[in-house]
Amino acid sequence: MKALVYQGPGKKALEERPRPAIQTPSDAIVKVLKTTICGTDLHILKGDVPTCTPGRILGHEGVGVVEEVGAAVTAFKPGDHVLISCISSCGKCDYCRRGMYSHCTTGGWILGNEIDGTQAEYVRTPHADTSLYHVPAGADEEALVMLSDILPTGFECGVLNGKVAPGSSVAIVGAGPVGLAALLTAQFYSPAQLIMLDLDDNRLEIARRFGATHAINSGKANVVDEVKAITDGRGVDTAIEAVGVPATFHLCEDLVAPGGVIANVGVHGAKVDLHLERLWSHNISITTRLVDTATTPMLLKTVQAQKIDPKRLITHHFRLDQIIEAYDTFGQAARNKALKVIITP
Amino acid sequence: MKALVYQGPGKKALEERPRPAIQTPSDAIVKVLKTTICGTDLHILKGDVPTCTPGRILGHEGVGVVEEVGAAVTAFKPGDHVLISCISSCGKCDYCRRGMYSHCTTGGWILGNEIDGTQAEYVRTPHADTSLYHVPAGADEEALVMLSDILPTGFECGVLNGKVAPGSSVAIVGAGPVGLAALLTAQFYSPAQLIMLDLDDNRLEIARRFGATHAINSGKANVVDEVKAITDGRGVDTAIEAVGVPATFHLCEDLVAPGGVIANVGVHGAKVDLHLERLWSHNISITTRLVDTATTPMLLKTVQAQKIDPKRLITHHFRLDQIIEAYDTFGQAARNKALKVIITP
Repeated sequence: MKALVYQGPGKKALEERPRPAIQTPSDAIVKVLKTTICGTDLHILKGDVPTCTPGRILGHEGVGVVEEVGAAVTAFKPGDHVLISCISSCGKCDYCRRGMYSHCTTGGWILGNEIDGTQAEYVRTPHADTSLYHVPAGADEEALVMLSDILPTGFECGVLNGKVAPGSSVAIVGAGPVGLAALLTAQFYSPAQLIMLDLDDNRLEIARRFGATHAINSGKANVVDEVKAITDGRGVDTAIEAVGVPATFHLCEDLVAPGGVIANVGVHGAKVDLHLERLWSHNISITTRLVDTATTPMLLKTVQAQKIDPKRLITHHFRLDQIIEAYDTFGQAARNKALKVIITP
Repeated sequence: MKALVYQGPGKKALEERPRPAIQTPSDAIVKVLKTTICGTDLHILKGDVPTCTPGRILGHEGVGVVEEVGAAVTAFKPGDHVLISCISSCGKCDYCRRGMYSHCTTGGWILGNEIDGTQAEYVRTPHADTSLYHVPAGADEEALVMLSDILPTGFECGVLNGKVAPGSSVAIVGAGPVGLAALLTAQFYSPAQLIMLDLDDNRLEIARRFGATHAINSGKANVVDEVKAITDGRGVDTAIEAVGVPATFHLCEDLVAPGGVIANVGVHGAKVDLHLERLWSHNISITTRLVDTATTPMLLKTVQAQKIDPKRLITHHFRLDQIIEAYDTFGQAARNKALKVIITP
């Protein structure tokens, strides 16, 4: 089969690889119908993710059809259409039983990282019963690819951790796909202000169309003053960090109101300065989280009920044999006005 | 009257000052029966607290008897014995109505900071109806001085923010009076492990007597390994920072388990390094808080019901005319084996 293989920092290729086989009774083999590329895949290609070694098939998102299941799998059978979660979870360990699937002792984010992933014609999904979801009848399967990772990430790490509430004020720093996923799902809770901050004016315009009440270029010198002017001089109840660099985290420290939350979503490669000399008395919380995908069933219902339309996050389409071009497009996302790209094997 | 007056960085003196008078209808004048010195008073004397200007009477803790009340005060009358909260709160502003009394727009921590405090024979307490508490009949008034600040601080900023729960694991970094207050109040919730860390072996011994299940000298090279060995290799569910310097906060970052909380209690004078390159995926929370004293009525009940004995935190007694000596003793607390000192005008 064809598969996109990481070949070490800066190197990737579309290779011919053997089709995966069942390894343990809880595995399933899924034929991939649609997959995509994540910002985390770009991190891997930079050499930032040491758990991902050369030779790995990348990709941790997708929708497919079950080809074969192991003897222990009871919730899925060949022919079932399934959403593949970026998080594999055994459902049995201490962390899984607390709903912290991202820290499953034999799972977590392993797909396209510690085991071969979804940017291929077929993928082996471990712990299938607790890591796959049935695609609802009549669903737009392409749209559901957004539920493998970015929608639950924006929702759980940003909106839920950030305690977005009716009438509250929210700033989202970073209008990339995950920041926009937070923007879409924040609206479940009817905040009063939903302020999007980014350096790219095209993405700010998209944010306005997606429901931001304010969209501000964060390169402006007086960005903190501008947000405070919108929020009675106090700052925001929720500051969502959706970039992953020190400057954007520091901006959240300046934006958060007393009693507020900084919900970190970004994948960071370096430490940040936490200004406790100022914030020790500010009654704030800072949260971090690798998505648990505990809310995937809930998000599936919101899509079915047309409370959100994940398809709005998709800007480009490629065939699997064009995946190098897809990486080039997504790697220069702002220049190409790209959000998520759909790849069809 | 006699009063301990801040005279600028490094300088203080017991001075003769006029007795305070009612300034607004919601004020009370309280004759101070017992007061104490706080670590924050030492911060002021170092010049670390710019809101406190020379000429200020220090002190934000105490028990006394109401001498006079303004026309708007209805909950207290002359002769009532009262506990003075370190936090003054109007009860009416947005923050007060959310229970965030520490951020009251006309109050907060102002006593012995922005207005004259309790290390004197008399003190004016603003917003008396919502900032004083009736001393229960038969209570040990000296013990209740611990409820002005350190017990609610350890409890609210450490135990409640840290989500201490039955069967959970807790590490408290810093066995000073506030760390010990967290240790005493953490036991309300029956954690499985209560690990105290400090550099001073005398304080660790006190912590053992106060209920710590483990007491470890944090100067040891392998302190993180030792805590992990106690907690199944995972670290603690709650790490309470009760010192206020970067090293102790960084230790909490090393101790917290996935899914855990770092509850900051310490007053910090410098920024710290937040290692998001490691913690972004750790599913943790970090909380900061200036005590709201929202739990003072609850803590009064726990003292009355003998669930805790705050008197155990008192090691020394002085008269008001000995207050300079009291500062010397408290300023070298570890050397003098001092916890809290009681001062009687």
